[in-house]
Amino acid sequence: MVQRSLKRLLLGRPLRNQELSHEKLSNWKALPIFSSDALSSIAYGPEQVILALTAASALAYGFVPYVSVGILFLLAVVTLSYVQVARANPGGGGSYSVAKGNLGELPALIAAGSLIADYCLTVAVSISSGTDALVSAFPQLNPIRLGIDLFVLFGILMIINLRGVRESANAFVYPTYAFIFGIAALIVTGMVQAFTGTQPVMPPGSLEKQWTAGMLFVLLRAFSNGCSSMTGIEAISNGVPNFKEPAAENARITTYWMSAILGTMFAGISFLMMHYHILPIENVTGLSQIAELTVGRNWAYYYIQFTTMLILYLAANTAYNGLPPLLSLLAIDGYMPRYLSARGDRLAFTNGIIFLTLAAAALIVVYHGDTEHLISLYAIGVFLSFTIAQSGMVIHWRKVQSPGWRSRATINGMGAIITGVVVVVIAVTKFRHGAWMILVFIPAAIYVFKKIKTHYSSVSEQLGMDWTKIGVPGLERKHIVIVPIAGVNRVVQNTIEYAKILKAEVHAVFIGTDSEQAVKVLERWNRWQPGIELRVIESPYRTIITPLVRYIDRMDKKNNPQDFITILIPEFETKKWWHRILHNQTGWMLRTVLLLYRDVVVTTVPFKLTK
Amino acid sequence: MVQRSLKRLLLGRPLRNQELSHEKLSNWKALPIFSSDALSSIAYGPEQVILALTAASALAYGFVPYVSVGILFLLAVVTLSYVQVARANPGGGGSYSVAKGNLGELPALIAAGSLIADYCLTVAVSISSGTDALVSAFPQLNPIRLGIDLFVLFGILMIINLRGVRESANAFVYPTYAFIFGIAALIVTGMVQAFTGTQPVMPPGSLEKQWTAGMLFVLLRAFSNGCSSMTGIEAISNGVPNFKEPAAENARITTYWMSAILGTMFAGISFLMMHYHILPIENVTGLSQIAELTVGRNWAYYYIQFTTMLILYLAANTAYNGLPPLLSLLAIDGYMPRYLSARGDRLAFTNGIIFLTLAAAALIVVYHGDTEHLISLYAIGVFLSFTIAQSGMVIHWRKVQSPGWRSRATINGMGAIITGVVVVVIAVTKFRHGAWMILVFIPAAIYVFKKIKTHYSSVSEQLGMDWTKIGVPGLERKHIVIVPIAGVNRVVQNTIEYAKILKAEVHAVFIGTDSEQAVKVLERWNRWQPGIELRVIESPYRTIITPLVRYIDRMDKKNNPQDFITILIPEFETKKWWHRILHNQTGWMLRTVLLLYRDVVVTTVPFKLTK
Repeated sequence: MVQRSLKRLLLGRPLRNQELSHEKLSNWKALPIFSSDALSSIAYGPEQVILALTAASALAYGFVPYVSVGILFLLAVVTLSYVQVARANPGGGGSYSVAKGNLGELPALIAAGSLIADYCLTVAVSISSGTDALVSAFPQLNPIRLGIDLFVLFGILMIINLRGVRESANAFVYPTYAFIFGIAALIVTGMVQAFTGTQPVMPPGSLEKQWTAGMLFVLLRAFSNGCSSMTGIEAISNGVPNFKEPAAENARITTYWMSAILGTMFAGISFLMMHYHILPIENVTGLSQIAELTVGRNWAYYYIQFTTMLILYLAANTAYNGLPPLLSLLAIDGYMPRYLSARGDRLAFTNGIIFLTLAAAALIVVYHGDTEHLISLYAIGVFLSFTIAQSGMVIHWRKVQSPGWRSRATINGMGAIITGVVVVVIAVTKFRHGAWMILVFIPAAIYVFKKIKTHYSSVSEQLGMDWTKIGVPGLERKHIVIVPIAGVNRVVQNTIEYAKILKAEVHAVFIGTDSEQAVKVLERWNRWQPGIELRVIESPYRTIITPLVRYIDRMDKKNNPQDFITILIPEFETKKWWHRILHNQTGWMLRTVLLLYRDVVVTTVPFKLTK
Repeated sequence: MVQRSLKRLLLGRPLRNQELSHEKLSNWKALPIFSSDALSSIAYGPEQVILALTAASALAYGFVPYVSVGILFLLAVVTLSYVQVARANPGGGGSYSVAKGNLGELPALIAAGSLIADYCLTVAVSISSGTDALVSAFPQLNPIRLGIDLFVLFGILMIINLRGVRESANAFVYPTYAFIFGIAALIVTGMVQAFTGTQPVMPPGSLEKQWTAGMLFVLLRAFSNGCSSMTGIEAISNGVPNFKEPAAENARITTYWMSAILGTMFAGISFLMMHYHILPIENVTGLSQIAELTVGRNWAYYYIQFTTMLILYLAANTAYNGLPPLLSLLAIDGYMPRYLSARGDRLAFTNGIIFLTLAAAALIVVYHGDTEHLISLYAIGVFLSFTIAQSGMVIHWRKVQSPGWRSRATINGMGAIITGVVVVVIAVTKFRHGAWMILVFIPAAIYVFKKIKTHYSSVSEQLGMDWTKIGVPGLERKHIVIVPIAGVNRVVQNTIEYAKILKAEVHAVFIGTDSEQAVKVLERWNRWQPGIELRVIESPYRTIITPLVRYIDRMDKKNNPQDFITILIPEFETKKWWHRILHNQTGWMLRTVLLLYRDVVVTTVPFKLTK
């Protein structure tokens, strides 16, 4: 029971069904809770734009403002679209629910596939980036970067989420505001210095640009990279039921605030990147470079790095609020294994949490926590689910035809078209960098969803009661009990006594590898006289299972198919669990093999050792 | 059944008991089979002497001849002693059997502990050294050194040995002779060059020596290192039954030959090391340096490296012929888990082979295949078991009092004393380098042996039949059957039908997490009317196991202790095994938990799905 105590210590006491709470959040509390994912992405988004532009050997740094403006425009479109989604209040499940209700099965499953990929990537990207922020401040931690990633994942996020939803709300409020404050202060300080300093506001390198044939592709790729900043923006619209009344109105206002803060921070950071002519340095994030150049390496710098790390880890946590409920919905609809819908004894979706943790761990380990590669996989799924959600909303507005539905449908339609174009842009420009994996993953996921659904339907059909036959007396069923024994001792004695109580036809069978041993066992058996004949089967190959299975087969043929054959396995249970390794596992093996391959009832009659 | 086919492909068809052959070996065939371990150790032994001497900062290289003479003297003593052992023909088990028969339990267990350590280290050291020889020839393989080690271990040695003993004999003959020929040719060529060349036979550096205060300790440590060359010398005396008649005589002659070859090669290699003033170079063995300096980097060089590698891998294989039978003897005597004594379907001691493979793999991984460190652990156990075997022989000769027993006892007594002194020397000089681990391991192993023995005695006592009560009618035993159900379907229907056939008191129990569901199940149950009352138990914490266990406890208290309580678990088996991951594992969990913690009979009534 040590495992049990450890579990209690880490996860807390079990909770009753009635304890599932629905705390209503005020706007100032909802903002940090739902926006940590979106806001945290400015820690890597602007840098990704620079990365794409400087990777092109031509002079491209000067295109930063153009790309940034494009991203800010897209942000505005997506924001307006999601305000409409919030208005319709689709509840949990996000794009999947919207698509299922309005577009049908296939779009819903596409959305589900891309959401699963996104949530797993959110955890992997956010944790890696959080650790990047930490390592930028403390380079000596670089060798244990992967260890830190996995500790945050398993030791903190998984545990917190298995403890259940209730604890995680308040932890968000202060770090998010602290981060917003820190970045705002950084941008203001940096801009004041830029405009009052002796250096030019823009060093010549930052303005260099040259239009070449391939530049359109480079710009689109930079734009695709920057789109990673928009991940998480749908969080508020999924969380409408958590807002105070009027919930939709409050959610709308909070969405605008989030977007405004995100846009301002994105613009400010991009400006400072150009001002300092930031170039990628290994193991030092762009944000860390800016902070160091603006305030020096003092407490203010560490404040920025620390709050950045914190909000990124919190962003990873938001995926824990998103994916397990989605998996639960999919499981209830029969597209994922049923147990993903079960709440554990702390009311959390235990299996979904473990699923997400393992998937993110795999991504982190495979990509060695390399943020850049992970982000390449990221944006396409996000925008695919944006597109599906917006398209679904268009259908939704047409169905409900509430006042003003036309303008709403238009906004969502515009959103769908623009995000759809973005999907194509990302798919093309980032195809080689990992987008292809998502484009393979989604159809594969849909295939699996459908297979699972088919299997469940087939099972439920086969298990359904045949009510027409109820009350009709069935054929008489005989009961044959087979007891394989390895010797004559108290365990066998106990088992044979049990066999007798079943009032069936009992066969005791000894499977011996040499005849000398068989003679000895027979002699002891006859001395004991249990009133049942002992049959001896020789096994020249020293295996118990094959001759036993052959014996069962023979019994099977001799009797009617409706008869029950029971195998009674005599087994003793040692007092201490580790004593078990001293005894062979024949009982366990017999049980497993017989249950898997034979249509027999398997019974274990245990005999407890007392010392 | 894919696993089964793969197993057959790798391991071959099962063998009958009668196929256990005892091929008798002629001397020229026995020599390579039993001496690969001993002979191969000249690949690292002489180098280890140089290593210890050059590690001392003082001038010590010139002491090589002194140390070598000491080792050759010791070799002579050990050889004479083991010729006496071969004469007594102790059969398998080596030192353990000798000590058990003549000295009693504790020395036998000490011998067993040191033999286990030695065999595992033999595999680890020989494989690492074999790969060293390979990497010396092909430095580009250095990065995958560990991979090569593990492939040889798992992919070759484990598979070959699981295939059984019969195949392994002939594979030894040619490589061992090829190795002996190669080394002999190398030594002759090197000596001719040395004595006819223009360079001095001994460069001044090789003769430098200076006696300082700490030099005795350095010399003794070099001597301890060199003792690693003597490992495996006992192999012939353990293999006497495999020789042609007169077996003891033939074994004696073969032992002399082996020793003579080993001594000559050791002396020759040591001479060439001094002649070339070999110093340790990373990733290049001393033998490789000698070969390159003597013959250049041509086919002859590759021949030496390749045969060295081969004989070292074969030496690792000899441990597979030694440890599994020893573990089997220990298991039969009750000191190790019983199943170590079972022969698998290819007649090999499957579990012992896996034990040895895993232990050697652990050593290789922990020490990164670093030969030098492993050898430090090595010699002490070898000489400890030498000492015990020789002491045992003294007692043996005194017991049998055959003609000439006094001189034989004297030789073995001398051997025991000298190898005992060597044990102390190694323990002292190599204590910090790993000898302490063996000195900790052996008592720990003895503790475990005794614990296991105690446990088995206690179990066999508890399981023993109480013959006095045979024939006396016992108390009447009631039978209560509990069927936990999760719904009303065909699986449950099948289980209830089975329950009825048992003619016992049947309790059907539904454990529901919400009352709505309970009402629905009750309704279906009543419509079905199986003739058994359904009890509903509420579980607010969404767990099935705790309420069920509580229900069983209540039943337990209500009834007599001799009564049987059976839990019938309704379960369906999916058609394809991978379908199982789609269904929750409640049945499996229930079975495990109930078998571990409750004194109840657990029965699984499976319902096979047909698609």
